[in-house]
Amino acid sequence: MLTSPTAPGAEAASDEGPRRNLGALLRRLHLAGPMSRAELAEEMNLNRSTIMALTTRLSAAGLVRERQPGGLGRSGRPSLVVTPAADRAYVLAFDVAVDRLTAARVSLGGQVQDRRIATRSRSGPDLDAVVGVLAEFGRDLHRAARPGAVCVGVGASYCGMIRPGDGTVRYGPYLGWVDQAFGTELRDQLGLGLPVRVGNEAHLGAWAEYLRGAGVGVRNLIYLHGDVGVGGGIIVGGEALDGESGYGSELGHMVVNPHDGRPCSCGARGCLEAEVGERALLDEAGLPADVIGREAVRDVVEAALRGDPASRRAVDHVGDWLGIGVANLINLFNPGMLVFGGIMRDVYLGARERVDRRIAAHVLPVSRHRVRLEVAALGDDTTLAGAAELGFADLLANPLGVMASLDA
Amino acid sequence: MLTSPTAPGAEAASDEGPRRNLGALLRRLHLAGPMSRAELAEEMNLNRSTIMALTTRLSAAGLVRERQPGGLGRSGRPSLVVTPAADRAYVLAFDVAVDRLTAARVSLGGQVQDRRIATRSRSGPDLDAVVGVLAEFGRDLHRAARPGAVCVGVGASYCGMIRPGDGTVRYGPYLGWVDQAFGTELRDQLGLGLPVRVGNEAHLGAWAEYLRGAGVGVRNLIYLHGDVGVGGGIIVGGEALDGESGYGSELGHMVVNPHDGRPCSCGARGCLEAEVGERALLDEAGLPADVIGREAVRDVVEAALRGDPASRRAVDHVGDWLGIGVANLINLFNPGMLVFGGIMRDVYLGARERVDRRIAAHVLPVSRHRVRLEVAALGDDTTLAGAAELGFADLLANPLGVMASLDA
Repeated sequence: MLTSPTAPGAEAASDEGPRRNLGALLRRLHLAGPMSRAELAEEMNLNRSTIMALTTRLSAAGLVRERQPGGLGRSGRPSLVVTPAADRAYVLAFDVAVDRLTAARVSLGGQVQDRRIATRSRSGPDLDAVVGVLAEFGRDLHRAARPGAVCVGVGASYCGMIRPGDGTVRYGPYLGWVDQAFGTELRDQLGLGLPVRVGNEAHLGAWAEYLRGAGVGVRNLIYLHGDVGVGGGIIVGGEALDGESGYGSELGHMVVNPHDGRPCSCGARGCLEAEVGERALLDEAGLPADVIGREAVRDVVEAALRGDPASRRAVDHVGDWLGIGVANLINLFNPGMLVFGGIMRDVYLGARERVDRRIAAHVLPVSRHRVRLEVAALGDDTTLAGAAELGFADLLANPLGVMASLDA
Repeated sequence: MLTSPTAPGAEAASDEGPRRNLGALLRRLHLAGPMSRAELAEEMNLNRSTIMALTTRLSAAGLVRERQPGGLGRSGRPSLVVTPAADRAYVLAFDVAVDRLTAARVSLGGQVQDRRIATRSRSGPDLDAVVGVLAEFGRDLHRAARPGAVCVGVGASYCGMIRPGDGTVRYGPYLGWVDQAFGTELRDQLGLGLPVRVGNEAHLGAWAEYLRGAGVGVRNLIYLHGDVGVGGGIIVGGEALDGESGYGSELGHMVVNPHDGRPCSCGARGCLEAEVGERALLDEAGLPADVIGREAVRDVVEAALRGDPASRRAVDHVGDWLGIGVANLINLFNPGMLVFGGIMRDVYLGARERVDRRIAAHVLPVSRHRVRLEVAALGDDTTLAGAAELGFADLLANPLGVMASLDA
């Protein structure tokens, strides 16, 4: 489902024809922004006449623009600068979090052009309500796009386990969803004639941080995402760790506290999610059960950083468990980077020292040397940005084919 | 370092020339045994004249033999059967376990032709002694090879963390080795003019079970290896999980018992290795500290299976911790198979029910469905077989080039 951004040089060396080179070139511009033809030729290991042929075809489809640069190229002759055309192709990106629904129109190049947000109560299975809100947002964003712009794909992030292929939610504990046909329902309600690609929020967050965020170029990367639950996305050698059936990277259900662990949404006790998630922190801080949400988490962390003793104890307690989980992940994966997103970002910033202490105690020195710990560079948009990349996948695999089919 | 056996069809489709096809064809025969030209053509997606050209060249180098089959091919015309030549190319494979040194001559096709074993006491850093014994074994096995046979590579398995590239042991807790130049020392002492490729024992065991053992074709596979320590090899999408610097898959130092965990060789407490390794089981069974070794472990497991209460309790206790580790791994990797090797094989066979119970309690149903739990099909030879495959890697990447350089 997720297409790996292999090195442009490797793609260019293949003989699978111009379609692949067209896709690789457009992907490069989509992720890196404007580049000169000379730079593209060097990065893609193609000669400049081949680059020109590719950019000319992409330009004719309206997907890129070429312009004279301000200065001169290395050879003294100016090399045209190629820019992804933000007003030609866009995707609709959706994000279903436990307490918030987001929809956005995202242009080629990755900019959010417009967005709609609805907060919601935490209630039971309500596929129709969720899809209804998202579809209305989506149609609205689609109508508001400028004339000549084309919707080239739809991607959605969901806070649960997703069956690859059809976008069915297999298990979404916090919304109470089991085997709900989310992807096909949203496709039907949107009525754009495009499939809706659905991914797990943490998998998508990992992918977005790898493509555009804190972890660009880090081929072994672990992303920890906290919403109400705690999930993960793991990238191994530049590929998403999906496992045998697409349900890998479930680091929230790693058991860290087998003795007297807190009960978890999955029915077990002592899972990482149960020990470091929203409820664990708020309970440790002594807050009543009706205080919920990411703002409440941020308040506790800020109070801890200001020196409030109860908040400090709560953050330290949760940080200790987070540290065990992080140490285990480093031992298993020898990653180049761990990225903390969602409320894990806040917990990590509040409990950094505790996490570092656990790493020092439990991670073998050879693996400890390399790893960097970072917070999500895309902030609260990690999962939405990942959904947008899902939406762009088809276009970037076959730019002219997709544009031809949509213009027809 | 480890070469992935990508699908022959994928290799054949490339235009990287006959070298790659020669290597792919020889690898196929090396792993699968004799095949007809027609079968090779179908599996490799090449036409029969191309296959004939490849087998003719390999045959001229003495690496394969071709013979008339007993029956008739599908077309009515017999398709020659191609066999890897076991008397032409071999590797030396070494295995350094805590209490045992093994050396073997392994022929193309993977058969162990001859082996030497030395048991040893568990003592301190003794690079010279270990290399001395192995080099003598190796030279002896080399001299005993039949005339015309060529040593095409050397591979070694070591019970510790290995720096990729030069075969330095970064950390071998049970032999007390830190930064020992094992690979280059063994190369120099052997004096065959060949590099010695070194890998971690559990990484190599995983690879061997994937290529030739319980997990053939299982592209997401986890191998747990128990010697005195507990290590792991993890294969994700058909590739070894090495991580950023080659030290991934260290599942033995996953913390499973943070509260009152046993001390671990790494200095921390409650690691999987500390809770399920040899010493944990023997201590739980009430055996004195001088009772050690895999035979002692097997005795306890056999006693437990016969119903001896103390042994039963010990195996159940260790099985509970093993179950937590296994459940965590399934949640993280969504693997198709877990393979238990070394003493983990015995512990698993004795504690299967406990492990299953933990999986039922902690693994999300979507990931539980797919996974199979198996014991190592290669028995105590998993790590040695993996070392042999390391030794064959160069030949299988470039069969004629390697043979030409060695015959020169």
